[in-house]
Amino acid sequence: MQELKDRILRDGKNLGGGILKVDGFINHQVDPVLMDACGKEFARRFRSIDATKVLTAEISGIAPALTTAYHLGLPVVYARKSKPITMPDQVFLTLTPSHTKGRTVELIVSPEFLAGGERILIIDDFLASGATILGLVRLAQTAGAVIAAIGALIEKSFEGGRAVLAELGVPIESLAVVSAMEGDQIIFEGD
Amino acid sequence: MQELKDRILRDGKNLGGGILKVDGFINHQVDPVLMDACGKEFARRFRSIDATKVLTAEISGIAPALTTAYHLGLPVVYARKSKPITMPDQVFLTLTPSHTKGRTVELIVSPEFLAGGERILIIDDFLASGATILGLVRLAQTAGAVIAAIGALIEKSFEGGRAVLAELGVPIESLAVVSAMEGDQIIFEGD
Repeated sequence: MQELKDRILRDGKNLGGGILKVDGFINHQVDPVLMDACGKEFARRFRSIDATKVLTAEISGIAPALTTAYHLGLPVVYARKSKPITMPDQVFLTLTPSHTKGRTVELIVSPEFLAGGERILIIDDFLASGATILGLVRLAQTAGAVIAAIGALIEKSFEGGRAVLAELGVPIESLAVVSAMEGDQIIFEGD
Repeated sequence: MQELKDRILRDGKNLGGGILKVDGFINHQVDPVLMDACGKEFARRFRSIDATKVLTAEISGIAPALTTAYHLGLPVVYARKSKPITMPDQVFLTLTPSHTKGRTVELIVSPEFLAGGERILIIDDFLASGATILGLVRLAQTAGAVIAAIGALIEKSFEGGRAVLAELGVPIESLAVVSAMEGDQIIFEGD
């Protein structure tokens, strides 16, 4: 998606160590018009998979998942990283390593909002190692739901997440695929 | 806003201790169509205050703040509760008690995205004691920004937050004002 790539080139920054800083438009300050356009594009690509729900992980996944769900006319659930007091005692919980936090985090979904038979579209901001998305896959499968497709705003193809998720045999779409970052250079796949 | 009140009556639940469970449509599972309608309503009410940025706190504030910012054509910043590695060492940070977490949490904003001279519209899911919103006010004021207005999806008027915020002398708008919760009864102000 050219609009997202252009924005990454303009405002993204390679911090080294595989970290791409996009907190000026995606995950601290957010550009709602760009997020809406990304949601519209995900909806276009995933219209035919007949998902019943969008699933993401707090926090950075919420904006693109919300706009995607809006354009598909679906509810969205975000997995929590800590259990609020409004959640029942019995929950779906999985552990996943967090790249940007340097530790293991919990992903928790209430059984009230993830049920057997649902067709789940997973949306997140990044597809890197695939660890977070795989955590969401485990949660959905534990609930007896089916993974219908996976979408990420930005894929860092050099971290190998796509291969990890490939065995699921579902469509995987990224709106911008970064194949390498060298100094000030952010290089997209196919460029 | 009748649409939001109707949804609270249908899907909200009084958990006791002043806790209103709305995690089926606001803060775990989210209804994007309702959030868009709420954002549109905030935009209508706050059009004339000439805000330059919407500010909220992760996590539950993100959805209504994003849709409000979309309809006002503004960027949105969500204060983080832990400092990601993409953030500079020097940040704006304040401490605030969290009602639903039972402990003090940090609210952190990067100086890159909160600057002197900005006119800030604060949007959050709940206005209860006012503590979280007051934390956002402190962050904005520390940055030299001006508070233009405050909006909350749901106000629990029996927790007194409006009086705490009144001294700021800015418009405060809530889309649904709950004046009491007794057993299965959720009572709105003016009803």
